[in-house]
Parts: sequence; structure tokens; C-alpha cells
Amino acid sequence: MSANIEAAKAALSHLDLETREAGIKAASRDFFWYSPVLKDRLDHVMADFVVRPTSEAEVIEVLKVCFAHDVPVTTRGAGTGNYGQAMPLAGGCVLHLRNMDKVREITPGRVVAEPGCLLKNVDAATREHSGQELRMFSSTWETATIGGFVAGGSGGVGSVTWGSLRDLGNIIRLRVVTMEAEPRILEFRGEELARVSHAYGTNGIITEIEMPLAPAYDWVDIFVSTEDFGAAVALAEDVANEDGILVKLASVYEAPIAHEFFQRVKPFVSENSNLVGLMIAPHSMEGFLTFLARRPEVTLIYRSDDHDWPRRPGKVFEYGWNHTTLRALKVDPSITYLQVRYGFPDHVALIEKIRASFPEGEILQHLEAMRMGGKVAFGGLTLVRFTTEERLDEIVRLHEEAGAMIFNPHRYTLEEGGRQMTDATQLNFKREADPKGLLNPGKMISWDDPEFGYDAMYAYPGLKETAE
Amino acid sequence: MSANIEAAKAALSHLDLETREAGIKAASRDFFWYSPVLKDRLDHVMADFVVRPTSEAEVIEVLKVCFAHDVPVTTRGAGTGNYGQAMPLAGGCVLHLRNMDKVREITPGRVVAEPGCLLKNVDAATREHSGQELRMFSSTWETATIGGFVAGGSGGVGSVTWGSLRDLGNIIRLRVVTMEAEPRILEFRGEELARVSHAYGTNGIITEIEMPLAPAYDWVDIFVSTEDFGAAVALAEDVANEDGILVKLASVYEAPIAHEFFQRVKPFVSENSNLVGLMIAPHSMEGFLTFLARRPEVTLIYRSDDHDWPRRPGKVFEYGWNHTTLRALKVDPSITYLQVRYGFPDHVALIEKIRASFPEGEILQHLEAMRMGGKVAFGGLTLVRFTTEERLDEIVRLHEEAGAMIFNPHRYTLEEGGRQMTDATQLNFKREADPKGLLNPGKMISWDDPEFGYDAMYAYPGLKETAE
Repeated sequence: MSANIEAAKAALSHLDLETREAGIKAASRDFFWYSPVLKDRLDHVMADFVVRPTSEAEVIEVLKVCFAHDVPVTTRGAGTGNYGQAMPLAGGCVLHLRNMDKVREITPGRVVAEPGCLLKNVDAATREHSGQELRMFSSTWETATIGGFVAGGSGGVGSVTWGSLRDLGNIIRLRVVTMEAEPRILEFRGEELARVSHAYGTNGIITEIEMPLAPAYDWVDIFVSTEDFGAAVALAEDVANEDGILVKLASVYEAPIAHEFFQRVKPFVSENSNLVGLMIAPHSMEGFLTFLARRPEVTLIYRSDDHDWPRRPGKVFEYGWNHTTLRALKVDPSITYLQVRYGFPDHVALIEKIRASFPEGEILQHLEAMRMGGKVAFGGLTLVRFTTEERLDEIVRLHEEAGAMIFNPHRYTLEEGGRQMTDATQLNFKREADPKGLLNPGKMISWDDPEFGYDAMYAYPGLKETAE
Repeated sequence: MSANIEAAKAALSHLDLETREAGIKAASRDFFWYSPVLKDRLDHVMADFVVRPTSEAEVIEVLKVCFAHDVPVTTRGAGTGNYGQAMPLAGGCVLHLRNMDKVREITPGRVVAEPGCLLKNVDAATREHSGQELRMFSSTWETATIGGFVAGGSGGVGSVTWGSLRDLGNIIRLRVVTMEAEPRILEFRGEELARVSHAYGTNGIITEIEMPLAPAYDWVDIFVSTEDFGAAVALAEDVANEDGILVKLASVYEAPIAHEFFQRVKPFVSENSNLVGLMIAPHSMEGFLTFLARRPEVTLIYRSDDHDWPRRPGKVFEYGWNHTTLRALKVDPSITYLQVRYGFPDHVALIEKIRASFPEGEILQHLEAMRMGGKVAFGGLTLVRFTTEERLDEIVRLHEEAGAMIFNPHRYTLEEGGRQMTDATQLNFKREADPKGLLNPGKMISWDDPEFGYDAMYAYPGLKETAE
């Protein structure tokens, strides 16, 4: 199967087509470079052209043409993913959805939007319409799209209350176009959502998204510091377990993350300060301050509604989730990270066990309180000082042996970034919806190499060595 | 200290004063009669007069006059409490707050209301204003007041998500008038709220209430049935632990409660049907139906948004909390109940243990899923077939010995209906705010008899034997 790039470009020339090298290069990259491993493997990856459809009809047209000419299609939003979700490993077409950015309908508890709509624009529209906002979003809310979040994300700010995207009810409906000679339009709800959510666009193109909403509040951003790491963890967990206090974010940053990497926070903390970042609903502030006053071991250093910091620190959620890693590696380029899950009820003991098993300074705990099956526990986006790939693999192994689950962000396949096993639901739907295997090739191991054993990093054989 | 009733009446005659016997009698009763024990002790209780202030200034006037003339004052809202909270044990004045019924202010997440405002009227105003509603309310929402709920209740519909009234953040502010020669007006927030919330009006009169709000939705009322009691319990617990499914109520009714006592449900269930009553947000229905489809052992028999029942069953929450008991005792007057708490994580095992330790038919499990410290567990409003007071006490003892906490609804004191110990916060504030001990006398044991040992039911010595 050989792609006829020129024929596809010609057939799509009436659309918003990007053929300049600089433009193609820019649209062929996401935030894979947080990982030195992915940076090594994928830095050269480049599509042959980029097309930016403005409607579902145009998406269908692109897919028909690419199907006819055997051209791989990798879909992207803003490209803020860190697992190389949007990297066009086999070249071909990048389907850029940024022009499909409309909010279509808002009702109590629901929004319907096109996939290229920025998260912040969904929230702006729903807030303006009826005081509502998305239940959860990535820390890249300013720049990321709702489609990218659903297809490539798992949770984020808001997961402390609402759990993960994969939890029932956190996505209501997805409209999907298949990659066939005659693309079909399908509507998925309920169990069917698992076919295409968090599938990196490997088995269909999402053209419309219906998400649940929560009430929008003027969340109060808060920083609390303490010299005791355990007190910081307990604070985040306990506030999330306060049923009457409405929380949108509870992040823990082990010392000296705040002092070393959070420039505007630095004047207010020491090297020994562990930091907790919180978003609290304004009408929960009295309850929160009461809760805080019961803990003399912690100090409130910032609240966005009442402070005398000469320079505002910006949004607290832009210190959390994977913005923490971004801030750290801007200061120290040797920093990378792991994505860890510490499940209830052993989460706190597990975190302590793991902390104790590494040399000082090699890893730093960054935790995000989140609900899993109704219980508050922690996701970890552990900062790691990178030395070698071998040591990084060993760090992963040590976490897994201790009992933590790792979603390895130094791998570009769905399986390795997930549970290291075939997702039959996604695979079966790919068989049906992408018979030629043209969608985001190289990201689903079970499609390319069903016998893969996960003993070393998967290397997609179709990875183009240089741009054509 | 002898009350000068006539002088007080004369001094208050320009207010809305009730002096007719029928009117006084009606205002001297609450729903204490759910308990055969309280019925036996309190049936004759009657105040000397009733006054219905229309403003805080009039409340102050009443308190000044009653203080001057040593007249006991028992405050009431709609009188829907079941612990005799509003029974004027020592006679005197009933301070009826039904004329203080205004909603004063609504902002995002908050409402300020007068204590006599009905719960349903708070909700009507907040929904109309900005699509909001109270986080939680008693099943007597139609008739009960917000002040009575705060002063005499502990939680209810909504506690499955928001926990209990005593949890930080579930009451924002209370404005309180003291019972002194010159009544003071105090504003309580944070830790101070515990002084007067759930204090039955024994240490101050609440004149304004600020409560947090949640978004109002057109909740879908649902009944699910199953032959397996364990499956019913698991369904209620598990749906409450589904982080992406927004739930307002999850009640479990052991067979044959639905068949025997729920007249309009009866045609759709058998004697062996355990019933689960649910309120689900409309935008969570897809998620909920997916959740339900994974459980072939349960059957959806009713959803309020799509059903063919010839006679609507009414609001599902009016089958839950203490409406269950009311429905049961209307059919079988020998029924009473217990208020039980089954705490996480042993709640399910504890419920099974208790079920196994009683003869068939003596108790029937009625459970309400609720959050306690962030974890879903159960409150129980167990139906009990009453035989003798001795056996009832034994049933209480058996529950406590098994490890369940009982809030005994066959007692009229704060301590016996609570944790059977002195609440120093409430007692200390009573010393300050009610030096003559005139507010709702007989309800706080630690005021009257600090050495009381809780080995038998407390009998208030000041209980008036007959109406004067």
C-alpha cells in the first residue's frame, strides 16, 4: 500500500490546505518533547500536508480522498498532548480540526461542541449562557481543544470531584466519522463511547462532542505551604473528602518544587516548603478557612480573592497537572516526568514507600487528588531527573513493583501509555471503521503487532525516517 | 422561678398572638408521634400561648418580654421533626416563625433566607432566580422550614453527594438572637456554627440563614427493583460512587416495604421485591442507564421522564428518609423506626450482621446512601414493629453492640437523640445566651442534670403534667 500524496493534495486543493514546509512542520508536532525518549524517537516526524476542514462534510471529503489514495490521516487539535498522540508517524495527512470550533448547543448540564473548540471557549460560552462550565479540563485549558482532550486526555482539573473522562457520565455523546470508501457517521453513547474516547483518533474522527456541565463559579485560587510533606498530602486528601467544601483542584508539590520551579511563588516559600495548590468555590471559602484553621502545621500563603503579592501568580491550575512538568523543565531541561496512579486505600503508604526508595533529588512528588470509584486518591505526575533511558525504565519498573500503576509518557502507543494490554473495544472498532489502518498509524500496537510482548519499547516499523 | 404568663401575653398582645386553645394545641405538637415512646410521654404537652413574629425586631421583643417574666420559649417552624424538637415541655410560649418567610438574597452558590421560609419556597426562589437549589433538604420539603431543618435536622435528600448539615461548608452563616434582658444579635460562621445548628433552639433563636446552593436540575425520579437485597444495597452504594453520575438520592427498601407500604408502587413489585429509589440528574441518565445495563439482576420499573404508570407515584424523595416511616405507619400503626448510622468501610457487613440477628419481620431495612467524610456509606431509618418499650430498647442495644451508631428517635433530648454525651460547644453557648435556661427547656440534659448517666431514658422534671 503506497500513499499517493500528490493525488490527494490535488483532490483537496479547494480546502484550507497547508503545503508550506514550515506550516506542515508546526502542525506535525505536539508536546511529545516533555519526554527525552519520545524526543529522540519522534523529533523528525513530519506529515506531507495539513488540511483544516471547516465542517463535518469536509472531514468526510478528506477521509474519502485519503482512503482512495491510501494516505495516512493523523488528527490533531492544539497538539498539547504529551504522549505523541498527534504525531503523524507515517507522514501523510494531518487533519487539523481547529476550524471546527463552534459551540452548538447549551442546555442545563450539557454542551454540544465541535472538536476544535478550545476548552476555554467552551467555558466562556457556557458561562455566558447560563453560568456553567466543563466538569473537568486539562491544565492546557487556554490552548487545548475539547476534541483533543476527549481523544487524548484522561482527566485533569475537576477530577478531584468528578473522576476521570472514562467514568460513566463524563462524556455524554460522541459523533464519529469512519475511514472508509464511503465514510459513515455514527453516534455513540454509553458503552460505545469507549470505542473512540482516548483512542488518539486511531479508529474514527470525532466531529461533535456532548459533555456534561457543572456550575461555573469564580473559583478562589489558593496556595498553602508546609514543611511537612505528609501534612501537605493529608491536606489535599482531607479537603477533597470534605463533602461540604466544593473543590476543583488539589495538587501537592513536594519541596523544593515550589522554590525551584515556581518563580512567582518562590519569594513566599523556602527550599523546605511543600506546596498545596487548590481551587475552592467562593461559597465554600468559610468552610475551607475553618478546615484550615484546624491545621496549625500549614500556612495559607495566597488566595486570589485577597492577597498582597506584587505579581499575581496566574491561575493555580497552570501550576498543576502537566504544567508542573513544563515549569520544571523550563528551569531545568534534565527534568521529565512519570504518570502514576496511587489507588485507594493504600495510596498514602504507597507514595511514602516510593519516596523512600529513590536517591534524594532523583524524583520529586507531584500529586493530584482525584476521585477513583468514588474514593479520593492520587494521580502522580512525578518529576524525574533524567539520566539515561535505562534508568528511566528502571524507575518505571520500581514504581510498578511497589504497586503503583504507570501510564508511561515515554511511549507513543495507546497500550504502552495505558494498561499495556489490548483494548478489544478500540481494536474491534478500528477493524470496522478503519479497514485500511490509515488512521493515526503506529499508535495501536494490537493492530500492527498483536503478539507484541511489552518487554521493550515498541518501535513502529512504519515510522518514516525522514520527511519526504 | 415562676412564669408570669398573663403579664407576658399582655405585653405581647399587639403582636400576632394565638390564645385560642385549638390554635395553641396545634402549635404545640410536632411529629413526635412517629415514636410510641414519645407519644406516651409528650402527647399532653401544650404551651400557654403562641406568638408569630414577623421580623427580627419582634423576635427580640418576644424574648425580652419572656425573659422579664420568666416564660419558657420553644421555637418552631413547621413542626415536622420527629424527636419532639418543637414540643414545649414546660409550657410557656411557642415562638412560631412561619411569618418570617422571606428569601432575602440569592447569589451564585448562596441563598440568605429567614428561618420560617419553607424549603420548597427557598428552592422555588433560587431556581427562578438562577437555576439553583438547596444542596440538601428533608423529605418534608413541601411543608418544612429552612430554620427547622437547620435547628432540628441533620441531612437528607442530597446527603448522598453533599454529606451532612454538620459538615463544613453546608451551612455558611447563622444570625442568632440571645435570650437575655437585652437580647444580642450574633453572626456565626465556621466553628461557631456548631453552637446553634442542630441545637433545637435551646441556646438562641436563628433569625437569618445563609446556605450554599447547588445547581437545580429536573431530577429524574427512578425506582429499580430486585429480588436480592444485597444487589439493592450494592446498586445504591455503587451508583453513589460513580463519580460522573450526579445523584441526589439513593434509598434502599428491603422487601416487602414497597409491596406493603408503597400503594402506587405495589402493582409493579412483588412481596419479594427490594426497591431502590433514586434521583438522577437528567444529563447523567445516559451514564446511569449504562451503569444499570451492567446489572441484569435489577429491573428499572419507573422513571419519571418516561413511564406508563396510570397513577404517578409522586416525588421519589417522598418515599425516602422519614417519609418511609410515615407511609409504613399509615398502613400499620404498630410500625416505628430507628435512626442508624453504618459507617464506612464496614457498613455492608454490619447491615447484614444486624439483619441476621432479628426475627423475620421485626425490623425491615430502609437505608439512605450518604457521604460521610468523603466516603459513601449508609444511614438507616430502619422500620421496627413495635411491641414494648423494653424490646425497643433491646433492639437499640443490639444495634449498638453490633457496632452501629444509633440516634435514638424515641428520646426528646439532644444528647439521647445524638451521641449520648455533653456537647460542650452548645452547653457553653447556652450558659452565655440563655442564662435563665428558658429556651426549649428539657431538651439539653447537660444543662439540667450534668451527672446524668444515660442508663435509662431521661425524664425532664419540668415536664408539665397537664395543660394549665
